[in-house]
Amino acid sequence: MQKIAILCSGGDVSGMNAALKRFVEYTQAKGFMPYFIYDGFEGLIDNKIVRAKYSDVAGIITRGGTVIRSSRSERFMEKSYRLRAIDNLHSHDISSVIVLGGDGSFKGMQKLIQESNICFSGIPATIDNDIAGTEYCLGVDTALNIIKNAIDAVRDTASSFSRAFVIETMGRECGYLALVSALTGGVEMCLIPEIPYNLDNYKKRFMKEMKEGRSYFIAVVSEALKKSDMILEWFEKEIGMESRKVVLGHTQRGGNPTVNDRLMAYRFVTSAIDGLIAGERSSVVCYNDGGFSHKDIGEIAFEKYTICTDLLKLGMEYEK
Amino acid sequence: MQKIAILCSGGDVSGMNAALKRFVEYTQAKGFMPYFIYDGFEGLIDNKIVRAKYSDVAGIITRGGTVIRSSRSERFMEKSYRLRAIDNLHSHDISSVIVLGGDGSFKGMQKLIQESNICFSGIPATIDNDIAGTEYCLGVDTALNIIKNAIDAVRDTASSFSRAFVIETMGRECGYLALVSALTGGVEMCLIPEIPYNLDNYKKRFMKEMKEGRSYFIAVVSEALKKSDMILEWFEKEIGMESRKVVLGHTQRGGNPTVNDRLMAYRFVTSAIDGLIAGERSSVVCYNDGGFSHKDIGEIAFEKYTICTDLLKLGMEYEK
Amino acid sequence: MQKIAILCSGGDVSGMNAALKRFVEYTQAKGFMPYFIYDGFEGLIDNKIVRAKYSDVAGIITRGGTVIRSSRSERFMEKSYRLRAIDNLHSHDISSVIVLGGDGSFKGMQKLIQESNICFSGIPATIDNDIAGTEYCLGVDTALNIIKNAIDAVRDTASSFSRAFVIETMGRECGYLALVSALTGGVEMCLIPEIPYNLDNYKKRFMKEMKEGRSYFIAVVSEALKKSDMILEWFEKEIGMESRKVVLGHTQRGGNPTVNDRLMAYRFVTSAIDGLIAGERSSVVCYNDGGFSHKDIGEIAFEKYTICTDLLKLGMEYEK
Amino acid sequence: MQKIAILCSGGDVSGMNAALKRFVEYTQAKGFMPYFIYDGFEGLIDNKIVRAKYSDVAGIITRGGTVIRSSRSERFMEKSYRLRAIDNLHSHDISSVIVLGGDGSFKGMQKLIQESNICFSGIPATIDNDIAGTEYCLGVDTALNIIKNAIDAVRDTASSFSRAFVIETMGRECGYLALVSALTGGVEMCLIPEIPYNLDNYKKRFMKEMKEGRSYFIAVVSEALKKSDMILEWFEKEIGMESRKVVLGHTQRGGNPTVNDRLMAYRFVTSAIDGLIAGERSSVVCYNDGGFSHKDIGEIAFEKYTICTDLLKLGMEYEK
Repeated sequence: MQKIAILCSGGDVSGMNAALKRFVEYTQAKGFMPYFIYDGFEGLIDNKIVRAKYSDVAGIITRGGTVIRSSRSERFMEKSYRLRAIDNLHSHDISSVIVLGGDGSFKGMQKLIQESNICFSGIPATIDNDIAGTEYCLGVDTALNIIKNAIDAVRDTASSFSRAFVIETMGRECGYLALVSALTGGVEMCLIPEIPYNLDNYKKRFMKEMKEGRSYFIAVVSEALKKSDMILEWFEKEIGMESRKVVLGHTQRGGNPTVNDRLMAYRFVTSAIDGLIAGERSSVVCYNDGGFSHKDIGEIAFEKYTICTDLLKLGMEYEK
Repeated sequence: MQKIAILCSGGDVSGMNAALKRFVEYTQAKGFMPYFIYDGFEGLIDNKIVRAKYSDVAGIITRGGTVIRSSRSERFMEKSYRLRAIDNLHSHDISSVIVLGGDGSFKGMQKLIQESNICFSGIPATIDNDIAGTEYCLGVDTALNIIKNAIDAVRDTASSFSRAFVIETMGRECGYLALVSALTGGVEMCLIPEIPYNLDNYKKRFMKEMKEGRSYFIAVVSEALKKSDMILEWFEKEIGMESRKVVLGHTQRGGNPTVNDRLMAYRFVTSAIDGLIAGERSSVVCYNDGGFSHKDIGEIAFEKYTICTDLLKLGMEYEK
Repeated sequence: MQKIAILCSGGDVSGMNAALKRFVEYTQAKGFMPYFIYDGFEGLIDNKIVRAKYSDVAGIITRGGTVIRSSRSERFMEKSYRLRAIDNLHSHDISSVIVLGGDGSFKGMQKLIQESNICFSGIPATIDNDIAGTEYCLGVDTALNIIKNAIDAVRDTASSFSRAFVIETMGRECGYLALVSALTGGVEMCLIPEIPYNLDNYKKRFMKEMKEGRSYFIAVVSEALKKSDMILEWFEKEIGMESRKVVLGHTQRGGNPTVNDRLMAYRFVTSAIDGLIAGERSSVVCYNDGGFSHKDIGEIAFEKYTICTDLLKLGMEYEK
Repeated sequence: MQKIAILCSGGDVSGMNAALKRFVEYTQAKGFMPYFIYDGFEGLIDNKIVRAKYSDVAGIITRGGTVIRSSRSERFMEKSYRLRAIDNLHSHDISSVIVLGGDGSFKGMQKLIQESNICFSGIPATIDNDIAGTEYCLGVDTALNIIKNAIDAVRDTASSFSRAFVIETMGRECGYLALVSALTGGVEMCLIPEIPYNLDNYKKRFMKEMKEGRSYFIAVVSEALKKSDMILEWFEKEIGMESRKVVLGHTQRGGNPTVNDRLMAYRFVTSAIDGLIAGERSSVVCYNDGGFSHKDIGEIAFEKYTICTDLLKLGMEYEK
């Protein structure tokens, strides 16, 4: 019976546990033997490779994060450690590895498969939604809903106090999280790297709206811009409104996964395992236009993600 | 300046208010004059047609239901009342009507446009997700997440007490809501009209699992089957386990809409208005393969929705 | 070192797991050896008594229900089974038992201690909040907040559709849950056993309010009255409004416990253990006027709980 | 008919809107005429005093913040502005004012009543729970439950990544919020001004637990200590664990109020109005030992709040 392993790499996201549950169930249904690699690539190097049992995944579907833990591994960048990782996989007779993570993790895995006969399937998992080749990365929907709840709560406070609030979201270099949060949070200002903006235009609009009775503003600013403090000051000085900053940190990662992230976890893992069974050696499972396809790791890891034009167009309306 | 009106018809869903907000903002941005028709087709007959202002939609994005209310109208089935509705629209000089609702509402509207020069755009909105021609109907994601929370809560209780729970979901004739809820809730049994099932197979599996230590089961049953009570009895008699029924009623409709339903509301409305501007006269906005298209009302209203094979395949695994 | 055990009996409530965590931590801090009795009195009879470890309770604080499960036991009513239970405790050298449950469970335990030298401490735990001698029972706050969310969601739907909704809450013979839910849910009608009501007065008020523009009503009805269907019909026939019933079943029990239930769990358990250390033999931990006291089981188990007059007075305002 | 007004002052809290709803309902039931003062003391000075109608408070019970807005007023510190405020009240023939706020607001009000014949009743409302003379301030329960959700989410991430997290809570000079959050969040470290701590003891314990397998820690630190960054560094250097800081900012204030805050809002307002009817001239409604009493403003505004010993004792267990 063939053996197949799974690991989580990089930042954890909600939905990873649902993916692990599906992994154990579906590998067994297909006649494979499932293995967990704990602590990401670090654990792969240190041989933390354990036969996965159904009892490991019972009841974990409701929990954020990942029960097999994740890591960022500097050592995996070095060939000597990757060779050790390959030895570990061989010693367990494991021929295929599924990796839940971002493009950095996929690049690392690409090197490993070039140095061995191990097969690899990548599942995009990052709340930043910044992986080229796929419209959706696991964890994004849960993160967005957490941000939504925060914005809804901040609006209560902002409207009670005639204040401006500057909310900084995660997203690394990508404005997706900030853009969708701004649109669905119904906020008044949205600044992301993908859309040019003009503060003078915002000022004109805001001054006009204040004359018409508006007493508060909420701005969503992507962390990529590193401009939250500047915008805070802008509200104080240019708009003349007391302002506060809210940095939504690691709370964005976590919590009980949404239905969509649970379902996407199931579908991503099913597609990954089907691909490995079909003989794929180095692919990433991508979700586009409502369906799944498998792309070569080279298409993914060295491209830049771009937000779809449909959403960008909505975002450009902020700057009327 | 052209005038365009919107109404909600049939069961309310979360996301309708976000749609109304977008309607007011986007019509004005495009140079139209927005109107609300209160109380659905009933209000259209009774001339409850009011110029929509921005202040009507400020802050409503977080609320379930619809602030312009909905209705089911028997009168609208009669031509005389439809003619009165047409007169009302003419008296306000309104040339286009957007309807948020289900296929029944679209059929009604189709008759009206055959009897007049009114243009119509339909936006699928029902938690049942049972409208032919579109993969997604507004409100489904919020409903699914409410059901998810209920199942998560019931599992706590079920596992504390060695009991079986039979959870009945909405969905009219369609098993979509039940199927996705079962999959993402991680339950042990899922009965929907679209998938044949064999209780003997379930019994064999459950008896085996009980021997291995399992002490509770959760079943999700679509209301379409009308079999919740029968399954309850089956658990008591055939499986020998105390059981309880939970009917998730109207709480499934409501509450603060998810990010996805807010965003879909924006995108559906934007697409509907763009279509009317482009000269469409009787189309329904459909979401498939990640994008929007406009289908003629005839394609929608007289077809039957089918769950995508990808999901059905996952559902068939219940019956191993 | 002395040994002390804990069990859960009757309906599970949110907060039991927090209590179990505190039990393990505080017994050990005080130099006791903690034991879990699984499956309530049934498990006590069947000797499901296991040394509790810290790893059993790690991470359970966020989960509803009880990881050591609960039961209702007919056998425990019989002396022969209670003697078996006593033998089991003796065989483990356990001298004290803490029971999380309702008055029925306390009565059962009272018999056991009369037949042995076992010490007992009871912690009131039921969402019905119907135990005499204590103002608060573990689990009530979580149940109330779940009901609140349901009522908030139903209001969205009710106000969208010009309908009356009849919401039936749990509570056995006690109207506490329904009363507090009605008050904090801002509903229009509240029927509980403790407050007489006059439907004619309600009718007069409702008809007047409908004339003034009100288009929906929400009624909260305690399950104790068994009148939900009658009220449903009353709305249809007497008020002339389409109506729907929502039975909030077992979803009321569960889910992530609130801060208050987690804190009360800690404080109840701390007080119970302190009492046993101080030499108490058969007491129930009661919470009144902001503090804890220990009452003899006889004061509790054979009295009837009454809702405090402060709340009853608020409830009587419904019937102006 | 006598006229009575209400205003919100200082930081907004969840539950203020429930209080406003009750204010309108109960004043009218008692034969008073209710007035809203918008924008706190600033609005009192600027005569933003408006007759309150039932429609102003319909449906607001579910929303955080305050629909009549709040403010911090420097001008109210000056006698000339207070005299203007008094003139405004006289011009509306208002004899009594209820203030929802903190001790600073009460002090301001005390001056005003010394300079006039206005009667005053204060309702403690601050998430810091730092007002002397009352065990509970409106808004605390909602804030605590928001913090709980954040801690629960952070734990998912912390346990996935072998990291320490330092969570900074609000509370001004008072450690109540941090202490209860730490206890009910089940965290490993709690630092507040009221309890001395020894980092060496923590280090010994943490090093021991890491040897036994623990891979993450969560610390809750009160903002009063201004030591979050220091503790972050301590985890990195002394414990040797990667760490992250999470500052729970204004999201703590907001959101849909809990059942307890809704109920306390009702009871506080009822008690305040009953007191004014009974002829009180300058009292603050206090909640202690499960009941309400009215204390003179002098007892409240110049004393320091102390956390009850029961809770402090639980907090001291952190430092074993």
